[in-house]
Amino acid sequence: MAEPESRQATGGHPDPLVAPHVARMVPYKPGKPVAELERELGIRNAIKLASNENPLGPSPHVAALLGEAGLRPEIYPDGSGFELRQALAAHHDVAMNQVVLGNGSNELIDLVCRTFAYGDDHLVFGKPSFVCYWLGSVASNLAYTEAPLKDDLAWDVDALLSAVTPKTKIVFVANPNNPTGAHMTRADLARLVHELPPRVVLVLDEAYVEFADADDFASAFEFRAERERLLVLRTFSKAYGLAALRVGYVVGAPELIDYLNRMRAPFNVNALAQRAALAALGDPEHVAKYVALNRVERARVGERLEALGLTVAPSQANFLLVDVRPRGFTGAQVYDALLSKGVIVRPMPPPLEGFVRITIGLETWNDRLLEVATEVCGG
Amino acid sequence: MAEPESRQATGGHPDPLVAPHVARMVPYKPGKPVAELERELGIRNAIKLASNENPLGPSPHVAALLGEAGLRPEIYPDGSGFELRQALAAHHDVAMNQVVLGNGSNELIDLVCRTFAYGDDHLVFGKPSFVCYWLGSVASNLAYTEAPLKDDLAWDVDALLSAVTPKTKIVFVANPNNPTGAHMTRADLARLVHELPPRVVLVLDEAYVEFADADDFASAFEFRAERERLLVLRTFSKAYGLAALRVGYVVGAPELIDYLNRMRAPFNVNALAQRAALAALGDPEHVAKYVALNRVERARVGERLEALGLTVAPSQANFLLVDVRPRGFTGAQVYDALLSKGVIVRPMPPPLEGFVRITIGLETWNDRLLEVATEVCGG
Repeated sequence: MAEPESRQATGGHPDPLVAPHVARMVPYKPGKPVAELERELGIRNAIKLASNENPLGPSPHVAALLGEAGLRPEIYPDGSGFELRQALAAHHDVAMNQVVLGNGSNELIDLVCRTFAYGDDHLVFGKPSFVCYWLGSVASNLAYTEAPLKDDLAWDVDALLSAVTPKTKIVFVANPNNPTGAHMTRADLARLVHELPPRVVLVLDEAYVEFADADDFASAFEFRAERERLLVLRTFSKAYGLAALRVGYVVGAPELIDYLNRMRAPFNVNALAQRAALAALGDPEHVAKYVALNRVERARVGERLEALGLTVAPSQANFLLVDVRPRGFTGAQVYDALLSKGVIVRPMPPPLEGFVRITIGLETWNDRLLEVATEVCGG
Repeated sequence: MAEPESRQATGGHPDPLVAPHVARMVPYKPGKPVAELERELGIRNAIKLASNENPLGPSPHVAALLGEAGLRPEIYPDGSGFELRQALAAHHDVAMNQVVLGNGSNELIDLVCRTFAYGDDHLVFGKPSFVCYWLGSVASNLAYTEAPLKDDLAWDVDALLSAVTPKTKIVFVANPNNPTGAHMTRADLARLVHELPPRVVLVLDEAYVEFADADDFASAFEFRAERERLLVLRTFSKAYGLAALRVGYVVGAPELIDYLNRMRAPFNVNALAQRAALAALGDPEHVAKYVALNRVERARVGERLEALGLTVAPSQANFLLVDVRPRGFTGAQVYDALLSKGVIVRPMPPPLEGFVRITIGLETWNDRLLEVATEVCGG
């Protein structure tokens, strides 16, 4: 019988990066891809009988769904995500071994928890912040502290730092934060980068980074040289518009990325998703167009909602967190009322029962939202 | 600070299905889909401002990749996989709450480990069998025993049963097995179903089930009524030809499926993958065509390799495990020699250093394999 590794068997290092069982993981070795062999041999007609794939391909009914991707749906994806990681490494001016792909950033949040925390390790994240940090903690049965935001829903870096214990191993910061839209200032981020104990893996979840335009906003990429245990999490689900396809990625030091690679599923990102992300990354003008639209509409919708007597939190993202209590409503009441008029927004769990979160849409959608919001909350 | 749940806090049940922290998980609640609201209100122009999706959609460069799917790539997938699960439930004559989807069966194997085993729980699986059972055990730091197969690489149900300890919580059986191709007989499967202690979750991984045609082969579906803790794992990566897109599923009792649902990522299966799987499921004739081709070619290739003096294990799958030691080779030597001639097969890790695994391809591919195998091993 193979026993699990005990927590003690770490060779005595006071701050091991991973538990012994994680260090023991070895990445799955997929069958050699045909293209790789053809490149090596300088031939064109290699055949692969290595991965038990269907040589006929799938039903012709599937082909029409896949358009001009030229994809062979029956062949396993490139488990290493070579082309997309190459493009991302160039995009961020890092080495390829500093990038790992995930099935959306959801998967990566969970993977970070499983890879870098174990046993009595402890996590810190904001309250409120993205719910997946809580899900990741509970799924791995880890202790955690939710550090409160300030009363105005801004990040409270003192609260984050004072939540850290000698057992803290991971700190998650969404920047801009979800569901508040607030960003952490460059100065506060610098404090976290420099003041957190070296053992802590600091994870900046920058899902909404493209929408941030405040002068004192800074991506964690600015601080990469200043902290070894720093991970930056990005997604193709928001600004790039690929939520349906599930692609996220983490950038960090090679040692950290290596462990994430060992723990992830061998083929965690669908082949078409890899292609689509590559195409989307190659069209920065399209992202810029969306960001510009969002900037104008975020300001307009915010002002109009404020004019209805609601309180709108300053947002650096593509949504607004709206306090409906000044008009005497709960978030659930406003959600239900808008729903009955065909507009879906997001009610918030405690402690935000008095709020709804509203995505900034196309101008016509926002007009419709403002119209029904006026019917519900105005007058 | 929120503490992790201790192992003891199980309310005293001697054989709890899951650890307390798993029971505490609550599924993520996604934004309400537009189609659902339109159905409910009987309207057609609802708008969704609930999930921070890109209202412009992705770059036009992405659209061409997606063909006629009519997919909106910027919208999150249906996290519940409603349509595909509905079709699968009908296909297998079970209720929808008996089916959960995964990002390939790889993800589901890991998910089963995380959901149903914890702490000093123990796993049993075959040696050799699919490597992902080992990966799942180590990733969750679980003890395991690899039960040896018989000398002829057939399943040894006595070895599996005798590997079970009072701590055993999960038994994984690949049927047909990978990489051997051997099936477990109906009688042996019945013994496992009936003789394993009630606490054990028995997982039948039927990735290759469509290719099995032996008279004494039985799917675990035959035994669903006879064991509460029984899960059947299926995939769209093999017979259905969708390996690139990552879709697998588990069928089991509602209580077990509910816990898997709590632990999985909210949007674990890509929207296009769900559509493609639905299309593939709707074309059983295509699968039947592949299965028929495989049956004929599996027999032909096996006979021809035997004629070269190699030993071919009886296979109920779409591959052959070939012992090359009778011709004085190691698997790595044959793999390298075939590779140099443009044919990729799979070398095997210990204890199968003397073997290669060869997928059954199209007739022309198999001819090419036999030609180069004759050059390498013949004469």
